[in-house]
Amino acid sequence: MKFTAKRRLYSLAVVAAVFGHFQNAQAADESINLKTMGSFHIGGRLVEISGKPVKEMLFSAGGVPVRIDPNGTYQVEQMYVQYFIPAQERGSVPLLMWHGGGFTGVTYETTPDGREGWVNYFLRKGWAVYNSDAVERGRSGWAQYPDIFKGEPVFLTTANPFERFRIGGGEGSFSQDPSKRRYLPGNQFPADGYDNMMKQIVPRWTTTDDAIMAAYLAEVDKVCPCVILFHSQAGPFAFKAAQARPDKVKALVAVEPAQVGDPDKVAALKAIPTLMIYGDFIDKDRRWPTIRKNGLAFVEKIRTAGGSVDVVDLPEIGIKGNSHFPMMDRNNREVADLIQKWLGDKGLYR
Amino acid sequence: MKFTAKRRLYSLAVVAAVFGHFQNAQAADESINLKTMGSFHIGGRLVEISGKPVKEMLFSAGGVPVRIDPNGTYQVEQMYVQYFIPAQERGSVPLLMWHGGGFTGVTYETTPDGREGWVNYFLRKGWAVYNSDAVERGRSGWAQYPDIFKGEPVFLTTANPFERFRIGGGEGSFSQDPSKRRYLPGNQFPADGYDNMMKQIVPRWTTTDDAIMAAYLAEVDKVCPCVILFHSQAGPFAFKAAQARPDKVKALVAVEPAQVGDPDKVAALKAIPTLMIYGDFIDKDRRWPTIRKNGLAFVEKIRTAGGSVDVVDLPEIGIKGNSHFPMMDRNNREVADLIQKWLGDKGLYR
Repeated sequence: MKFTAKRRLYSLAVVAAVFGHFQNAQAADESINLKTMGSFHIGGRLVEISGKPVKEMLFSAGGVPVRIDPNGTYQVEQMYVQYFIPAQERGSVPLLMWHGGGFTGVTYETTPDGREGWVNYFLRKGWAVYNSDAVERGRSGWAQYPDIFKGEPVFLTTANPFERFRIGGGEGSFSQDPSKRRYLPGNQFPADGYDNMMKQIVPRWTTTDDAIMAAYLAEVDKVCPCVILFHSQAGPFAFKAAQARPDKVKALVAVEPAQVGDPDKVAALKAIPTLMIYGDFIDKDRRWPTIRKNGLAFVEKIRTAGGSVDVVDLPEIGIKGNSHFPMMDRNNREVADLIQKWLGDKGLYR
Repeated sequence: MKFTAKRRLYSLAVVAAVFGHFQNAQAADESINLKTMGSFHIGGRLVEISGKPVKEMLFSAGGVPVRIDPNGTYQVEQMYVQYFIPAQERGSVPLLMWHGGGFTGVTYETTPDGREGWVNYFLRKGWAVYNSDAVERGRSGWAQYPDIFKGEPVFLTTANPFERFRIGGGEGSFSQDPSKRRYLPGNQFPADGYDNMMKQIVPRWTTTDDAIMAAYLAEVDKVCPCVILFHSQAGPFAFKAAQARPDKVKALVAVEPAQVGDPDKVAALKAIPTLMIYGDFIDKDRRWPTIRKNGLAFVEKIRTAGGSVDVVDLPEIGIKGNSHFPMMDRNNREVADLIQKWLGDKGLYR
């Protein structure tokens, strides 16, 4: 009997150990346990090109020449979406992440100084995450111009984001020499990550909004109901997507939206809880006071139509020093905690 | 006593059930358990542009105009790498995946018809996987031309890969109407995935080999020792990377390499076990007999220098119908099994 009791205790200890191990494997900051992950492209259209000369091209020194006939049909304006589905989903709907202008979904991956970004943060919390590259950026590919895309692509100098996005103190604050860069005092942007952030930036057009919008709507139609978390240039895309598909969008998390939705369709947003987050140093910038003012005017219209928007100016709640990139800033977890709590308060997390 | 025995049986059943659950959570096709995942950019250089006019640009209708001075310093030719580290690593070194021309790392993600690709396959087996986008493709970004990149980018028509990569039966086999496409008989390429594969293709240059090579070497220096699994255009990059860093590359898996390494440096490859895989229909194509012949001539040089290369023509071992894209073909798991077994035979899997 004593022997048996010992065996039972041993068995229970094994059960506890195995359970413990298994629970650790699930825990935040321990491992990321995925049911699956993958990617797809969505949307886009076919375009005909004709009347151009045929070329023979050598794709690499020593290769076999390839005949390239540029006339024909091209697939353009599709969008790349990468997804990660946790083994145990705790978000009541998937979380879509839409990046800002000149960037790709890399925005939400590892921060430029090598810490975990918001994809990992929300995945570890149990959200299914869909992280995309807008049309014409990153793995979405881009189309020939001027034949298909109109206008020229925009390339950013290493100085441009530093001076324009409240990392440095405006024009003239950047130097290629890191020791001579003039940061806004108390800035949370990781100084040792700036040069790396420049590697994340890709060319962009300013004429492709309709194509970007169409692909985002295609994503919403495929993946949602959902929450959309979006940054900067994605502001108008996300608000307009919600206005076009109000039943499919369960919440909007606007991180420093550069612009907003259609002011004539604010009623469509009234049942969609919205969180709007602004960082620090807004009043120290030439453009950001106007951008924020336009955002708040839109918020007032939504509220007048009966909608619910929570506007958080981070410095006002004691979270100081954020640049335009809170998902990359040193306190990116703190800002994510705020979003996570808000989503929970809205009943979207179980 | 009977009661106790019952309890013991019950306890053991719980242990078995919990163990079973935990093992399933680890097992292939059940869940993907990651220690972490993330991304980084590597390599690249700074380039100065001067003497161009300043522009005021509106980035979106209704936005705040932005002054764009195109003169300045640009970050170019970096490479994007996404990594997935299993909770329990079983590969003795990480597995790097390098894609072919006109593609990105998406090559190895979900297949165009929605099945799991080789990233998931090897991750589920316990390999740490580093999947990259070559310089100027996908999330690596690209540089302005002709100022920085020389020559023009190449765009592929929807007909081009179908006719050029042994999916269809050569020139004239493609039709935009899926029901009229003339596939090579018995082809394993997923017919319902072809239009989607076209969405994965991005513009490419034919003048950027040096930049691509430099970034791959930077990846090898950061991540390796490693195994490199590579496809098509990555052939010369991977063989040359191994020739430049023979101590860091523990095995090469060449999937239909379009070209090879430096024939004068084959001795550097003699200690690196190499697997070379060719699909079906080679003799039915205009270019592929030459490409394969060049590949085999390089293999002979490596063997003469004392190296070990296993060449597998898939149809000869009964794996029939593969296009140029075995990682996307319907039997992609079967081809992955062959690679996995070979890596195990070489002592690289524990």
